This record gives sequence, structure tokens and C-alpha cells, in this order.
Amino acid sequence: MDLLTRTVAAIRPPDEEAIAEARQRQDRLTKPRGSLGALEEIPVRLAGLARGCPPPLPEPAAVAVFAADHGVHARRVSPWPQEVTAQMVRNFLTGGAVVNAFAKQVHAEVVVVDVGVAAYVEPTPQLLSRKVRPGTADMTTGPAMDRDEAVRAVETGIEVAGDLVAAGNRCLLTGDMGIANTTASAALVAAFTGRDPADVTGRGTGVDDVTYARKVDVVRRALDRHRVSPADPIGVVSAVGGLEHAAIAGFVLGAAAAGVPVLLDGVIAGAGALVAAAVAAPAALACVAGHRSTEPGHGATLAHLGLRPIVDLELRLGEGTGALLALPILQAAVRASREVATFDSAGVTAKS
Amino acid sequence: MDLLTRTVAAIRPPDEEAIAEARQRQDRLTKPRGSLGALEEIPVRLAGLARGCPPPLPEPAAVAVFAADHGVHARRVSPWPQEVTAQMVRNFLTGGAVVNAFAKQVHAEVVVVDVGVAAYVEPTPQLLSRKVRPGTADMTTGPAMDRDEAVRAVETGIEVAGDLVAAGNRCLLTGDMGIANTTASAALVAAFTGRDPADVTGRGTGVDDVTYARKVDVVRRALDRHRVSPADPIGVVSAVGGLEHAAIAGFVLGAAAAGVPVLLDGVIAGAGALVAAAVAAPAALACVAGHRSTEPGHGATLAHLGLRPIVDLELRLGEGTGALLALPILQAAVRASREVATFDSAGVTAKS
Repeated sequence: MDLLTRTVAAIRPPDEEAIAEARQRQDRLTKPRGSLGALEEIPVRLAGLARGCPPPLPEPAAVAVFAADHGVHARRVSPWPQEVTAQMVRNFLTGGAVVNAFAKQVHAEVVVVDVGVAAYVEPTPQLLSRKVRPGTADMTTGPAMDRDEAVRAVETGIEVAGDLVAAGNRCLLTGDMGIANTTASAALVAAFTGRDPADVTGRGTGVDDVTYARKVDVVRRALDRHRVSPADPIGVVSAVGGLEHAAIAGFVLGAAAAGVPVLLDGVIAGAGALVAAAVAAPAALACVAGHRSTEPGHGATLAHLGLRPIVDLELRLGEGTGALLALPILQAAVRASREVATFDSAGVTAKS
Repeated sequence: MDLLTRTVAAIRPPDEEAIAEARQRQDRLTKPRGSLGALEEIPVRLAGLARGCPPPLPEPAAVAVFAADHGVHARRVSPWPQEVTAQMVRNFLTGGAVVNAFAKQVHAEVVVVDVGVAAYVEPTPQLLSRKVRPGTADMTTGPAMDRDEAVRAVETGIEVAGDLVAAGNRCLLTGDMGIANTTASAALVAAFTGRDPADVTGRGTGVDDVTYARKVDVVRRALDRHRVSPADPIGVVSAVGGLEHAAIAGFVLGAAAAGVPVLLDGVIAGAGALVAAAVAAPAALACVAGHRSTEPGHGATLAHLGLRPIVDLELRLGEGTGALLALPILQAAVRASREVATFDSAGVTAKS
């Protein structure tokens, strides 16, 4: 049995008993019932995933930044040259990017995975060189990659997740880098949610009106050409996705199989999670939405996955930055469920 | 010159040169311009406060939980007995509350200040016993406290801020505990913003419809009785405020005088900050809104102070919990401004 099939087989629906116990526990803690708002459900969800109550503290944590290039860049959908992908990978490796500063602040490890950067990237101890191919092909003229390549990229994500869990991590965060990857994300989101390309295509790192109109048209043409079906998620991602999307899908599947939560960054992560959820529906239950980006496709993605973002600050940077900002909040919510006294144990009178 | 007068005299308007430099710096960092959304302004604001660019990292951090009781509790505005204030103070001191779990997660120190708990609280090394009086009087039948007491509570807050900064803290967080304190908060918010009591009174820890109607009526009667003016902030807080509100106002003034940011929790903190801003307008510029609570008066407060909350998760717990969740995000935003490489230094090509 291949790695993808084995991983999917290992993903279980959440443990309803642990969920019920976690929900009861929340109501005994010394705080007004429901007063933690949207955070109340986090330990409940994670108890179901971990199959026990209280759930383990989601630390240590690691963010995997999956980097790849996109053939659709040739359609002039981004103002940034393609070489910036490799330049930013080097910036991650020398610790100079926002993802590095944020990760340092929240005590998360940064792992960079070259799953398909077009240029050669010099190996370093922090770089996992797992190039499936040097960037995708242009999805407006043919499939972005073939099915075998998509499966290899998915399995790369599964392996990275497995290795990080084996190293002791109890929370995985998605990161991404790839000039033009919001174009491929929009195509994936449209394919999986059924929304019109104009509703789910955004301005990415900041494009002008002319480029934006071209970007919507490119997404529409790619979808018209390939006629993909969400029932065939590997077919969708190979036709219009990116290598980092496929790898993130695998990363989510790997985390779900291990019962470890995966904190999603923005629209690229969300598009990858849509692939994962189409492969194995319960994988969505291992996901926590780190933030909501300004990309319109991200809102559609979160709604489709049934996720509420922890942070909502109009970020549109990627790299894993939104997920990293949410990490201490996720950890705090779980820590409270584990460490806060009950009304009985603290001798606090309940309300009348 | 007394401590309050000296503190107000030490509060300066922000350094516009440092602000301009910080704004330029943000645009040179290796990230698309503006891609950090609402976080872009944080290092800019803090540079103005610290009078230098980049601003210092806001750590270590300490949360001061100001606890006090409220005579208006006798008007049956809360379903919780008054003794819960002292019980929760003991819970804070033994580390069993949500504020303790959250503070541990984000590496903040917790200091508990009894500025007016009705019951006797046994001293411990973590407790600052600074009881100005054992709870306020019922504001519907007379002033909550006299002016001298209000000034003493304000000066207590100033001293606590000063001591925490002297101990090396570079970020102060507000916390609060006091059964019935959302009633006094609503009165303060109505007094300073001019809103109707019905618009700014909320359900606090969770009151039924009958209690809620009574609570609005109590706020309205108190304001009708005292006819306070925002031009006399000490008069307002002594008539309808709480001892913790006065202390938080002083805490904000003390932080502003020291040039150290103060991360506000929810509506009680916001009401205290309204007092501080009415005493010295630039004090608002030292404030960062940690979160937006579900209390309707909090939205009105943030709008009045010109603050955008970092976290928006429908919390309504108090204690400092919302501020603590925002702390790592604040720190991450400042860390990025200090540590991220520029396009030049990292050799990354800018967009065309």
C-alpha cells in the first residue's frame, strides 16, 4: 500500500466521547460559562482529535514553509519576478524574513521545503530539498503537473508532517512561498467550492486593475480548459494547482493521521486543505484556521471547511505568518482547559 | 507637586520624527508593502511612544490585575455574589485562573492589586495590598467614592506601573476583577462618550433579561443623579466608577509617562483608559487595544479612543485575558520591524 493510501486509511473521525467530556470540563472551570467565546471550542475540537480529554498542549510547534514556482507566472499575473521565490527561500534560511521573526517570538521551529522552486537552491541544514519538479507548467496551456508528480508532492507533505511529529512536535503550522501562487489558489478554491473565479481571485501581494482582470481571466481559462471535478482531488491539483498546494494537502493529511492539529495560514494553505478534505473529509477536523487573509478566496475556503479564523488582521503575506500569530492563542486556549481550577477545587461560589 | 500632577506633566505627545522613520522602515522590509495589515501601524505607534526607531521589543511584560468591589452590587445587577471577587483574587494568587494559564503561555508576570476588595484578603508575596476602601458605595444613592479616594486609587495605579517599569518590564497589561464592574464601566462609558446607557450597557458575565433591564435602569439613574462632566474626569470616576477603574486610569497614565505601551483588556480597562485620556489626552497614544469584548460599551470605548483591537474572539472574561492573548502578536509585530531584512540587505528583487 502506498504512503498516501496508508495515510488516508489512518485518518479517523473524531472521538465523540472525548469531545463530550471536554465540553463538560469547560463548564466547570472558574470562569463564567462561555466567557472564552470562540476559544471555548478549541480544546473540545482538539480533544476529539487527540482522542482524550484534556487534549495535550500543542507545543512544541513547527512551521513548514513549502516553496514552489508556478508556470502560470508567464501569464503576467504578478508584478514580482519569479526569481523572488528562490531569493525569499534564501532569506528564510538566513533568518531574515517575517516568518523567522514571528517564529522566534512564539518559539516555533522553521523548516523550509523546496518542493518545486524553479531555480537551484543551495542546500543548508534548514532546507529540505524535495524538488518534485522545477516549478509547474502553465495551467492555461496544459496541466500544471502530471498526476504522479502531484502524488509525489502530496507524499512529500505527508513525510514532512510525519518527521516533524516524530521529532516531538505537537502542533504543525503551514507556510508557503511561491510567486504567482494566489493565482493557482484561486483556481483550486473555485474548483472545490464551485464559486466563480471573479469571486475568489484576489490581488495577492498587490496587483493593479489591469493585472487583476488578467488574473481572473487566466483562472477562468484554466478551469474552462481542464473541466476538473472535486471528486478527483488529485486531478484538480495536478491540473490547476501548485506543488506547494499538493505538499500542504499531504501535510494536513499527515497531521490528521497522527492526531496532531495543523494550524493553517492563509489562502494557499486553505486551498491545500481543500485538496486534503476532498481526499479524506475528516482531515478538515485536524485543521485550525490561523487567520483570515484579505484574499476573497480565503473567506470562501474557510466557509467551505467550516473553520473560524483565530486572527483577523488583514494580513496578506503568507510564509506561515498568520498561523504563527495564532499559535500562542491556540496554546493558551488548550492550556486553560488543562490548568484552570474548577469552581469546586478553588472554592469559588457559582452564580445564582 | 503631587504624584498625579507630576505624572501628567511627564506625558509627552508622540515623537513625529520617530514615527516617520518607522513608517519608512516598514516599507523597506522584505515583504510586500502593507502586507502585515493592521499590524503595520504597531511599530510605528510604539516608535512614537519610545521616541526612537525601531521601538524596543515590548518584553518582558507584566499584567496587573486590579481587584475591587462595587456598592452598586446591592442593586442586584449581577447573578454572582460579591464574595466571588475575593475568592477569585485567591484563585489568581494560587495560579488557578484563566489569567494565570494565559500569562504562563505568553511569559508574562501576574501581579494582583487589591485596590478595594470588600473582604479581607490574606497577604501573599504576589498580592499588592493597596486597599483604598473596602469597595465603593452604591452610586445610585451617592457618589461611589469621594474625590480623595479616587485620586488615591489613581495614584496606586501610577505607582504599580512605575514599579513594574522599574523592575524592567517593557509592556504593561491591564487586568481586572470585581463583581458588578461592568455596571460601573457602562456608567463611565456613557459619561465619557455621551452614548445612552441602553447602548453601552451589556450582559457582563451573563445576566437574564430582567436583570439586564434593571442594570440599564441603574446606570441611567446613577448618571441622572450625579450629572457628571467629562471635563472633570476625577469627578466622573468618583461618582460612578470603581476603584479598579481609577487604578487602571493611573496605570495607563504611569505607562504613558514612562513611554511604555499598555495593552488594554476589555471594557473595564477601556473605561479606565477613558478616564486617563480625559486627564491627559496623549495617554491614549500609549494604549494598544488587546481585544474587543462582547460588551457593547467596549466598541463605543474603542471608537472613542481611536483604537483597533488586535484580537476579536467574543471573549467576555476580563482578568486581563484578552490583553494576554494579544501580547505575542504585539511583540511579533515589533520584532519583525527590528529583525526582518530589507530588500537591499537580503538581495531580494522588488516588484516591478
